[in-house]
Amino acid sequence: MTITITAFERSPDGGKGLARDTRVRWALEEVGQPYEVRLVSFKAMKEPAHLALHPFGQIPTYESGDLALFETGAIVFHIAQDHEGLLPEDANARARAITWMFAAVNTVEPPILGLANARLLERDKPWTNERLPILADRVRDRLDQLSTRLGGADWLDGAFSAGDLMMVSVLLRLRSSGLLDEFPNLASYVARGEARPAYQRAFAAQLAINSRS
Amino acid sequence: MTITITAFERSPDGGKGLARDTRVRWALEEVGQPYEVRLVSFKAMKEPAHLALHPFGQIPTYESGDLALFETGAIVFHIAQDHEGLLPEDANARARAITWMFAAVNTVEPPILGLANARLLERDKPWTNERLPILADRVRDRLDQLSTRLGGADWLDGAFSAGDLMMVSVLLRLRSSGLLDEFPNLASYVARGEARPAYQRAFAAQLAINSRS
Repeated sequence: MTITITAFERSPDGGKGLARDTRVRWALEEVGQPYEVRLVSFKAMKEPAHLALHPFGQIPTYESGDLALFETGAIVFHIAQDHEGLLPEDANARARAITWMFAAVNTVEPPILGLANARLLERDKPWTNERLPILADRVRDRLDQLSTRLGGADWLDGAFSAGDLMMVSVLLRLRSSGLLDEFPNLASYVARGEARPAYQRAFAAQLAINSRS
Repeated sequence: MTITITAFERSPDGGKGLARDTRVRWALEEVGQPYEVRLVSFKAMKEPAHLALHPFGQIPTYESGDLALFETGAIVFHIAQDHEGLLPEDANARARAITWMFAAVNTVEPPILGLANARLLERDKPWTNERLPILADRVRDRLDQLSTRLGGADWLDGAFSAGDLMMVSVLLRLRSSGLLDEFPNLASYVARGEARPAYQRAFAAQLAINSRS
C-alpha cells in the first residue's frame, strides 16, 4: 500500500531538516519503507482540502489506504508499531521507548519552541532581548536533566528506538543556539542520530526539495 | 499487580484537578483499575530517589511490577493499551485516537502552557501585560481550528477515547482564562468530559488530598 506524506513546498528553514516531515522520513527510512511526498504551499495548508487531513493546517500528514493521520509523534508511532526496528519487542522496554517519544514532544520540545518562537514571532518586540536568557535557562534546565539521565549511554534506553528518533529530532532545533554544545554527551547523542544512514537519507531527501532553485 | 502512581503532596492548583496525576487517575478510573498513590513533596521531587523514576523531577510516575514509567501521555497510553475502554479495537480508529493524544500534548497544550507560564513565571515582568493578549491569540488560533474539527460531535473521533481524555485535560487548563467560553462547542466538550463518572472519581480523589487542612 502506497504511503504518501506531505511536506512544505518550501521549508522555512531552507533545508536544514528541522521541518517535521524529516522526522517521518527518518522513521520510514529506518524501517525501509518507501514513500511518496506531496508538497504543500503555505496557502494550500490553510485550505479545506488540507485541513480535512490536518485540522491544524500543518505538515506532515500520512496517508496509506483508508488511513489518514496527522501529528508527527503519532505518525512515527504508527510506523514504529507496524514495522520492526523502531520499538523493542519486550513489552516493558516498548513502553519505556514510547515514554521517551512523549517526553521529547511534551517535556523537552516546549521550552525549545519557547526560545524559537521568541526569536521568530517576537523578534521585533522591545522585551525580547531581555527574555532570551530566561528562555535559554529554561532549555538548559531540561538539557541538564536529560544529560544526567543519558550519562555515557549511546541511546536513552538500550537500543536506538523511536524515542531516540524523536528526542534527537527535537534537540536538533538547538544546533544554531549553541546550547547543545554545553552538554557534550547530548551533542554526541545528536551526532550519533545524524550519523545513522536512515537519517542521512531523510535529510538528503528534504534538502533536495528545498535546494531547488 | 499493584499500580502505584505519584502525585503532589500539595498541588500548586490547590485541588482544581490541573496537576497531571488527574489525567492518569482518570484513565485508571475509566478502565476500572484500582491504584495506590505515593505523595511527593517539591523537595523530594528533585532528590535522587524520585529522579531515578522521573528524570525531569515531575509527577506523575507509574509503577507496576517491573515496569516504571513517567510522562503522562505515555502512562495514559500504556493504561489504554493494556485495558479495554480507552482505545478502539479497529486499527485505523486506534491510530486516529493516538493521533489526538499527541495533538493534545504537542499542538494544543504548548500555546496554553505559554499563556500559563507568562502568568506564573513572568508575572512581575514589565512586558507581561503587553504579551498576554498575543499569547491569548495564539491559544485562540488553535481553539478555533479544534472547534471547527469537532463541529457538533460529542468526541473527536467516534466514541470517547484516550485522545479525548488528553484533549479535555489540556483544555481544562483554560477554564480560568475565559477563552474556552468563546468556543461553545469546546466548552460543551470539556463539560462532557468532566461529567463522566470516571473523571468525577479522579477529581474527587485528588481534591481529597489537596483539601486536607
